[in-house]
Amino acid sequence: MGKQDGQKTGETAAVTPRAKDYAQWYLDVIKQGLLAEHSPVRGCMVIRPHGYAIWEKMQRELDDRFKATGHENAYFPLFIPLSFLTKEEKHASGFAKECAVITHHRLKSVNGEVVPDPESKLDEPLIVRPTSETIIWAQYKNWIQSYRDLPLLINQWANVVRWEMRTRLFLRTAEFLWQEGHTAHATEKEALEEVWRMLGVYADFAETVMAVPVVKGRKTEGERFAGAIETLSIEGMMQDGKALQMGTSHYLGQNFSKGADVKFQNKDGQLEYVYATSWGVSTRLIGALIMTHSDDAGLILPPKLAPVQVVIIPIYKSDDERGRTTEEARKVAAELKAKGVAVKVDEREGIMPGAKYYEWEGKGVPLRVEIGPKDLEKGSLCIARRFVSEIAGEAPEAQRKRRKTFLPRAEAIDSVLPTLDAMQKELFERAKKLRAARTRVIDTLEDYEKFFKDEGGGFAWVHWAGTSSDEDEMAKRFETGIRNIPFEDQIPPEARGEGRCLLTGKPSKQRVLMSKSY
Amino acid sequence: MGKQDGQKTGETAAVTPRAKDYAQWYLDVIKQGLLAEHSPVRGCMVIRPHGYAIWEKMQRELDDRFKATGHENAYFPLFIPLSFLTKEEKHASGFAKECAVITHHRLKSVNGEVVPDPESKLDEPLIVRPTSETIIWAQYKNWIQSYRDLPLLINQWANVVRWEMRTRLFLRTAEFLWQEGHTAHATEKEALEEVWRMLGVYADFAETVMAVPVVKGRKTEGERFAGAIETLSIEGMMQDGKALQMGTSHYLGQNFSKGADVKFQNKDGQLEYVYATSWGVSTRLIGALIMTHSDDAGLILPPKLAPVQVVIIPIYKSDDERGRTTEEARKVAAELKAKGVAVKVDEREGIMPGAKYYEWEGKGVPLRVEIGPKDLEKGSLCIARRFVSEIAGEAPEAQRKRRKTFLPRAEAIDSVLPTLDAMQKELFERAKKLRAARTRVIDTLEDYEKFFKDEGGGFAWVHWAGTSSDEDEMAKRFETGIRNIPFEDQIPPEARGEGRCLLTGKPSKQRVLMSKSY
Repeated sequence: MGKQDGQKTGETAAVTPRAKDYAQWYLDVIKQGLLAEHSPVRGCMVIRPHGYAIWEKMQRELDDRFKATGHENAYFPLFIPLSFLTKEEKHASGFAKECAVITHHRLKSVNGEVVPDPESKLDEPLIVRPTSETIIWAQYKNWIQSYRDLPLLINQWANVVRWEMRTRLFLRTAEFLWQEGHTAHATEKEALEEVWRMLGVYADFAETVMAVPVVKGRKTEGERFAGAIETLSIEGMMQDGKALQMGTSHYLGQNFSKGADVKFQNKDGQLEYVYATSWGVSTRLIGALIMTHSDDAGLILPPKLAPVQVVIIPIYKSDDERGRTTEEARKVAAELKAKGVAVKVDEREGIMPGAKYYEWEGKGVPLRVEIGPKDLEKGSLCIARRFVSEIAGEAPEAQRKRRKTFLPRAEAIDSVLPTLDAMQKELFERAKKLRAARTRVIDTLEDYEKFFKDEGGGFAWVHWAGTSSDEDEMAKRFETGIRNIPFEDQIPPEARGEGRCLLTGKPSKQRVLMSKSY
Repeated sequence: MGKQDGQKTGETAAVTPRAKDYAQWYLDVIKQGLLAEHSPVRGCMVIRPHGYAIWEKMQRELDDRFKATGHENAYFPLFIPLSFLTKEEKHASGFAKECAVITHHRLKSVNGEVVPDPESKLDEPLIVRPTSETIIWAQYKNWIQSYRDLPLLINQWANVVRWEMRTRLFLRTAEFLWQEGHTAHATEKEALEEVWRMLGVYADFAETVMAVPVVKGRKTEGERFAGAIETLSIEGMMQDGKALQMGTSHYLGQNFSKGADVKFQNKDGQLEYVYATSWGVSTRLIGALIMTHSDDAGLILPPKLAPVQVVIIPIYKSDDERGRTTEEARKVAAELKAKGVAVKVDEREGIMPGAKYYEWEGKGVPLRVEIGPKDLEKGSLCIARRFVSEIAGEAPEAQRKRRKTFLPRAEAIDSVLPTLDAMQKELFERAKKLRAARTRVIDTLEDYEKFFKDEGGGFAWVHWAGTSSDEDEMAKRFETGIRNIPFEDQIPPEARGEGRCLLTGKPSKQRVLMSKSY
């Protein structure tokens, strides 16, 4: 079978080096990894099988964590009546500028041209959900009467649409896939605990599964979710030093329960509005994954999210050799599968081993096992890692050699799980090192300018006590903003304590995280 | 914690008996089982956590089967440009009358009223996908060049929208969830094999997982998917004797590859249009599940699709008893969980055991374990089945007793898996018996009329050689239609062979399946 996930025959995109053109590198990695592509529909992407398989792995990991914290999944309508959206004022103004509006429900042929049938015009337009607070809280009104009905802990996996003018695969698309948790609580305290708990779940997922270190904190007022009282976020650093917001958790107070008139009888028999939270992560995380770990050869996947963790490639010249090496490859695959490893044997004919290596490296598969006639004779296996820790100044050829290990068969098979485990940890450590190398504690505008204009920038720990127009000035001068106001334990020791605002000189209680961002 | 899947406090819908009002019974089962409800958005339903959990179980089972047959998942855009829909003529006319049309991408406040911003009118309207052939084949054009790129075996899990005027929870809603397989092949033969293979997957899933017996066959021309050359279906019989189409698999020939201009170079170096298939099942299957197995006490779930297979209810009067029975319930739960059983302990306080029994029966949980202080003393457990095979004329109280088994603890725990297995088989046998009891081999219009007008109807095996206007006549006179033209092995021995058309008397090669339907 020639096809590989819908890859076009002979499709071998070369990857532009990061140093040359970072934005192009990102697109090339996606193309070579067969992850996604633009569709003919403005701003909408097609997630190709390999990209979707990574999303499925993420979903499984997240869903298990949501269920372990007491949440259940449900499904609410794709459409929101216009009047619902406008029930919460800030929410409406936040989403009105970027939504898909349905106005008709039938087509008609007029003079040979198919157009929306004027007679099918809807009395009230419908909005394709940009997020589901309003439609979900309309339903919660039927479900909540008493404190005994609370907490209500629900999550939805869904597609949402925000009409973005400038799109970028995974990072910003008109339609994207996500999960949105929507919970209802009897007290503010309990709701706030939920908001913090779910941010913790996201941070744990980012660090232990995606191997992406993140900074947890609060968003500034201007960056809050439309309709939220408090928005918490996790922020990761991409390899170009820019921040990427990877997940948010919102405390909505009683804003949405008031909009939908959802009251409950508390233990004292009084009627109160319900306290709400919402939280979400999206296919944007695949963008974070790519930009944190991948290299100039293409995609690198942390083993915990790799749909294929080990690819086995039989090497042969004759039909006889093909038979024997393929048989051994299948045996090794079966043994690895029995250990719980996601393994694939690449038996495609007519493709040179080198081309296969190249293709699987581009897809980010952590380990490759090569099995040739000599390996059969020796009873050994050659295992090649997708990456090894870098040594400054090392020649590519030397590194390539260092990536390969030759071991007796049984030993090689036993080494797979520990190696995958080690690679998962190495990726996380590597990302932390990279972040540390591009992080500064900065106290003067001069140093700030130097960092962002001359040194490539990154994360800056600065004291801040400015207004939102001061924030605008920082954005205009440096293209930077406050990513979040980190929780105290997120601030490195050398950056703790009080000080004076970088811009205004006013007293500041703690530093914030400033950087450029996606 | 008082809440149970968003159930309103004290929400205890009584179920209307089937014999009294079948349509109302269906709605009551859904309500009592907390499966779904109507939303404020016309024709769209909300799938509640218990209903969604059943869908998740179905998804997992189906997805495993799709992957085992070589398919990969991907994701394509929600929106289809109007011009795409019209590329395949029959397809367009089939869906033009029931689609959601997006015409604007922004809202605006005009005199205090929020309306679609006239300046944001789209040059070309977008359709919310009713099915994805056209948008997917536009992408396949980029992916397919040579026979080596084929077959391309892709599936998508998604929401789709068909603007239905008359909706019914799960069976017919404007938005529904489904999977749609879209495959591309180098030859007609291979494509047809895929069409048959996937119908087989659906039939196997229906019978072994859903415990619903189905008839496999071809649809008549008038009932084919818009744009298909051949449509195969599986048809189940509901308890009211009506048929429900549970899944379809289409051979699309080169209709869509021509529309999207997708050619490939075959082994002889010539350019040919690609051969296509598509196949799908939807949340409609939950409707089939309900209407096949449930009874006047509410939902009955086959163990393989029950999100909770065993619920354990501690019974107590004092705090001391509560402590001891709850502890034992948790221990039993842990032991069952270790055996792979989906188990839940209902520890809610302030709710009488009887109310709990009633609630879990309504949710279709196959087995209930009751643990009271006496059971602790005796070292025994009481296991109650959701259903037992019916005995004609048996009093409800007698049946209720027969549903309970008292066994020594270890024996009781060991009995759970075999009991679940037996219940799964019993449901299938029960459904087959019900179907057999309402199936007739009919040779005269007189008998046909008697069957459908006096005897309640069901499946009729009749010879047919009529035209489509003859079909219309059967629909007008009896509200019946040809469900499908069954494969030969689907026809019971007594109905095989040639004969003469029921209506026209013309010669007929084989019988077809006629019935009323949803």
